[in-house]
Amino acid sequence: MSARRGFASDNNAGAHPEVLEAIARANAGHVRAYGDDPWTARAVERIREHFGAGVEAFFVFGGTGANVLGLESLLRAHEAVVCSEYAHIEMDECGAPERYIGCKLLPVPNEDGKLAPELVTPRIIGIGNEHHVQPRVVSIAQSTEYGTVYTREEIHALADFAHARGMYLHMDGARLANAAASLGVGLREATVGAGVDVVSFGGTKNGLVGGEAVIFRDPAHASEFRFRRKQAMQLASKMRFIAAQFDALLTNDLWRRSAAHANRMAALLAERVRGIPGVMITQRVDANAVFATVPREAIAQLQEEFFFYVWNEERSEVRWMASFDTTEEDVETFAATIARALGSPRKASSTI
Amino acid sequence: MSARRGFASDNNAGAHPEVLEAIARANAGHVRAYGDDPWTARAVERIREHFGAGVEAFFVFGGTGANVLGLESLLRAHEAVVCSEYAHIEMDECGAPERYIGCKLLPVPNEDGKLAPELVTPRIIGIGNEHHVQPRVVSIAQSTEYGTVYTREEIHALADFAHARGMYLHMDGARLANAAASLGVGLREATVGAGVDVVSFGGTKNGLVGGEAVIFRDPAHASEFRFRRKQAMQLASKMRFIAAQFDALLTNDLWRRSAAHANRMAALLAERVRGIPGVMITQRVDANAVFATVPREAIAQLQEEFFFYVWNEERSEVRWMASFDTTEEDVETFAATIARALGSPRKASSTI
Amino acid sequence: MSARRGFASDNNAGAHPEVLEAIARANAGHVRAYGDDPWTARAVERIREHFGAGVEAFFVFGGTGANVLGLESLLRAHEAVVCSEYAHIEMDECGAPERYIGCKLLPVPNEDGKLAPELVTPRIIGIGNEHHVQPRVVSIAQSTEYGTVYTREEIHALADFAHARGMYLHMDGARLANAAASLGVGLREATVGAGVDVVSFGGTKNGLVGGEAVIFRDPAHASEFRFRRKQAMQLASKMRFIAAQFDALLTNDLWRRSAAHANRMAALLAERVRGIPGVMITQRVDANAVFATVPREAIAQLQEEFFFYVWNEERSEVRWMASFDTTEEDVETFAATIARALGSPRKASSTI
Amino acid sequence: MSARRGFASDNNAGAHPEVLEAIARANAGHVRAYGDDPWTARAVERIREHFGAGVEAFFVFGGTGANVLGLESLLRAHEAVVCSEYAHIEMDECGAPERYIGCKLLPVPNEDGKLAPELVTPRIIGIGNEHHVQPRVVSIAQSTEYGTVYTREEIHALADFAHARGMYLHMDGARLANAAASLGVGLREATVGAGVDVVSFGGTKNGLVGGEAVIFRDPAHASEFRFRRKQAMQLASKMRFIAAQFDALLTNDLWRRSAAHANRMAALLAERVRGIPGVMITQRVDANAVFATVPREAIAQLQEEFFFYVWNEERSEVRWMASFDTTEEDVETFAATIARALGSPRKASSTI
Repeated sequence: MSARRGFASDNNAGAHPEVLEAIARANAGHVRAYGDDPWTARAVERIREHFGAGVEAFFVFGGTGANVLGLESLLRAHEAVVCSEYAHIEMDECGAPERYIGCKLLPVPNEDGKLAPELVTPRIIGIGNEHHVQPRVVSIAQSTEYGTVYTREEIHALADFAHARGMYLHMDGARLANAAASLGVGLREATVGAGVDVVSFGGTKNGLVGGEAVIFRDPAHASEFRFRRKQAMQLASKMRFIAAQFDALLTNDLWRRSAAHANRMAALLAERVRGIPGVMITQRVDANAVFATVPREAIAQLQEEFFFYVWNEERSEVRWMASFDTTEEDVETFAATIARALGSPRKASSTI
Repeated sequence: MSARRGFASDNNAGAHPEVLEAIARANAGHVRAYGDDPWTARAVERIREHFGAGVEAFFVFGGTGANVLGLESLLRAHEAVVCSEYAHIEMDECGAPERYIGCKLLPVPNEDGKLAPELVTPRIIGIGNEHHVQPRVVSIAQSTEYGTVYTREEIHALADFAHARGMYLHMDGARLANAAASLGVGLREATVGAGVDVVSFGGTKNGLVGGEAVIFRDPAHASEFRFRRKQAMQLASKMRFIAAQFDALLTNDLWRRSAAHANRMAALLAERVRGIPGVMITQRVDANAVFATVPREAIAQLQEEFFFYVWNEERSEVRWMASFDTTEEDVETFAATIARALGSPRKASSTI
Repeated sequence: MSARRGFASDNNAGAHPEVLEAIARANAGHVRAYGDDPWTARAVERIREHFGAGVEAFFVFGGTGANVLGLESLLRAHEAVVCSEYAHIEMDECGAPERYIGCKLLPVPNEDGKLAPELVTPRIIGIGNEHHVQPRVVSIAQSTEYGTVYTREEIHALADFAHARGMYLHMDGARLANAAASLGVGLREATVGAGVDVVSFGGTKNGLVGGEAVIFRDPAHASEFRFRRKQAMQLASKMRFIAAQFDALLTNDLWRRSAAHANRMAALLAERVRGIPGVMITQRVDANAVFATVPREAIAQLQEEFFFYVWNEERSEVRWMASFDTTEEDVETFAATIARALGSPRKASSTI
Repeated sequence: MSARRGFASDNNAGAHPEVLEAIARANAGHVRAYGDDPWTARAVERIREHFGAGVEAFFVFGGTGANVLGLESLLRAHEAVVCSEYAHIEMDECGAPERYIGCKLLPVPNEDGKLAPELVTPRIIGIGNEHHVQPRVVSIAQSTEYGTVYTREEIHALADFAHARGMYLHMDGARLANAAASLGVGLREATVGAGVDVVSFGGTKNGLVGGEAVIFRDPAHASEFRFRRKQAMQLASKMRFIAAQFDALLTNDLWRRSAAHANRMAALLAERVRGIPGVMITQRVDANAVFATVPREAIAQLQEEFFFYVWNEERSEVRWMASFDTTEEDVETFAATIARALGSPRKASSTI
């Protein structure tokens, strides 16, 4: 079958070879199921090396499960989560948080996928009023659904804002690696070190076959996690195979090598298409995504050759994402195709 | 780390080499995520070859998710599921069906893990009475949690019983392969061909890294499954890697080779321990599990060498399971260890 | 205790004397519980007289229960309800719909509490995309939370819009009586006759001690309602006492007498305060509510004498509501108090 | 309509005249809605007089709501409630606890509706095992669904048992008044004074129009109750009318007068039917219910004259209940009817 690479999403990519090797190595004899095995112990140890000795960490199947379980640990059904109107939990999880936790999400309009205290404030209302859900968590994505990255100071500010109100800061880190690579900091600095209470640390979009981790700054929030994970259908039977992948990801900085590469490829793509008439880049390219408006008719033509998503039909805005396995040649070919589709073949080729 | 094999559970085993190879082969280039890829299409095709051309099939992460989603497709929150008091959904899923679906389970006492119409009948009460949950599904495990296997006639009888009352028959087939191998029939004959409406077809316990399928006899019940799977946190992003494993499982009858082997090893173990004084086999050994009572003091001693589960503390009953990778030598060593622990080394060695 | 009347809410009023008399009359001997009694049969008959012979109707305890059960009858957990951003279900039910149904609400910005097809359209997206909740219901309040009233044509347009998309139209009629009185039409014309699929018909705010009805245009949607009502903790044991109240409400047009009176008192209040400097009426006074901006310092002073709610802190907007027992004298006194608080005693008194 | 009285259930009775008077008295002017009113404050004060100064108390619409909200205050979704297999929460609430809380109920077989530590013990298993729900609450009904009454010592023993395991004791007191009257103790002694953590204090079955209270021994468990009550659709808008009924119930010992009378009438009925050939009383008549086996053919004949419930079809066991308004004449007439139906008119008449 097809061995082609595109720019649709980082989860359209396969798995990093080092990850597959780790799975093969873990395939040795019998170990206890459900995480009571040495591979899981070692992977949790790796996470503590990167996120801080005091954290608690658990592996789950997918990103939606990681987000829902992280949030469930921080609030009750009559409480609420303030998030971006573009948040994955708001837009792309088919209502899983509401269904499973029973809580309400309070989406916040914004321009670039990022929250800030002044954007969150208007949703902190009705406190103590039994008719209103009570905001308890601020949830941010890092990097955001728009490919932008919060600075450490911005995260600190949101954490301080939340904590000052008895609230918590949750991070959907499906692309945390890209964000940390973009900031040039470690995983701890990018998360719990900046005041984040619970993190979904994504592996799948950074080269795993599949697997996510939920990481707690305060172990007290994790005391019932094992029961919750099982009840939420997120407990892997052969846990060692998720754990081994995380072990690989956190060995020799595979996470950063892969993420930084994807980020560079996105930056290169942005550079290549910036000058193409008709293409307008709409967001900062902080991580591995490029958002751009493209004439409607060109989109269909491009999609015939490379599948990618239209982000906003109305604005004719598309999303292009680089992944750990994107090559410079992939980028040049794609940029040239775009240029050709927009009728400026020379311009594009001249930039190569 | 340890490369030893034991008899604790078939999910303590690793993955079959053919499964790992299939994962490696699927790791080629980019494909669309979430199941809209050629590997998933091919695996669904394989399932139709084995289960019947008319079935609908979907892949999910784990067995609890498969059961919950299968059941959710068949009932509403005010309805109920009749099941064995030993059912995995009743005893070992931390209340996931109740939490997620909101429905009630109606457990039925029994001796061998198996239901039958006359056992189910007493729970079909309060029909039309708004104070009572309304029984809508009968759920059976095949093979059962006690290692026993329903005959095709027994399944047919339960299906007829259910359908005659406007109810459905659900099968938790976490070990369906072992049951079909035990019965010497195909997967279709063992399931939808015998009237089962929805099947959880387990892969993990039969040599996959991880993955289960939900299979519908009537596609009408599956019409909303894709939304439900996503909302239930069971939609794999890189679906091809689950699909490829099922493709392998259903190629060259790997499912049957592995299951039949495990069944044979369990039968061998039963044969070997049957004569050991103090060991009493408590259930038919139809599939890959051996249930036996063993003197309490011997259990602790044995567990130091081989981890396994005590099934019933009170009765001093243990469960030993064989898996696809169990060897005859493993069985002989384990049987000898048991014999030694029970003070009859000679008897055990004479049987080798 | 206090026998004073205010303008805080129509649920701050007590019960209409005819309602208390009906309760007393129903207090005769034993009847079957849970609605299988002659009082309930008669009240349902009354509802059919007013809403149409083909409707199904059920009584519940409160408005939130009525809304949640009505919505639950129309959608599944992965589907969604489009509603006004000011909707009671969105703002004032502490997340009950999300908690109980598991569904998502999709709030729509608007100016006057009213939806219209062009406002709803932008939320009808992601159809068939498993990552998105699927819009299934449009829910409107009649009269709205802003005291405005949909015309029959506006309701028809929303019903046609919904039905053309396989969706349903739900009406939160906590103040349906006020709306119908305002429109000068019957209850049928105001609801199912205009295409509404399910109505919460409010009694409490129109002079009952307590009780609401859920009314279905299509009995097929009601087929499981009795089970759902019980499971949702909304089944009254001594149902006759809710039923008798509705019987009274629908006898000799008590519902319209009370609602029309409340509407007139609101109109009178609007007339009286319109000229007071500093008071700006912000919404049409179609039913029994007056929304107005008032200088912040005057609000606190007024609230010392008459309790009422600030609707929008930021805009310094308040809500004043008339009820079935509001008298002209109450209005004049209140208007005079407002005028005095705003430093224009003469102007106010001159309008009396 | 009919003004006849029967023995079907205490909720087939109407309301006590003192209760209707209290409602009428509370119908004076405007007060704040949702319980922020003087009637509610006074009723809570009354409850503290009877249950202890330290309790927290809240009013809800119905018994199912009271039970569900009480339980929700004590556990999380992955925890479980141990209860009698005959418990109302298990058998007669259409799965409301599972649906709303998401938790599991663990029913316990028993003979007389009563739990005891040795009956509960077998369900306290799997502690710390993430696959098992974790028992957190023992829930008892007082009086039980079988009309039996726990002694104070029995309650103390269950409370001690629960508390020693970090668990709580919940009481479904739908008929608490009958139990306390039977025991000859006050409401405090019968509940929190005996170690009960949360009580559903039933009013409806003891002569109210409708209303129940949830009472907390430890206010810490009630800290989020107001939000939970609203979200659970149990917050009455015109709360004063529920509160006033409780005020009446707790004034001049109306609760005890009514309950003791009902108990006496049940005792009289038991005395009258005990000697009738074919009638076998099956449970102690501690409170206001009589359980008896009666020949099947006689049941149908009797039900033509007096509606009542068959409790156990298989055993041909029926339930007869007395209520606050049952008269001695009602009892004698009913006993005579039974005697006649069973062909022993003389015997029955001789006992009059």
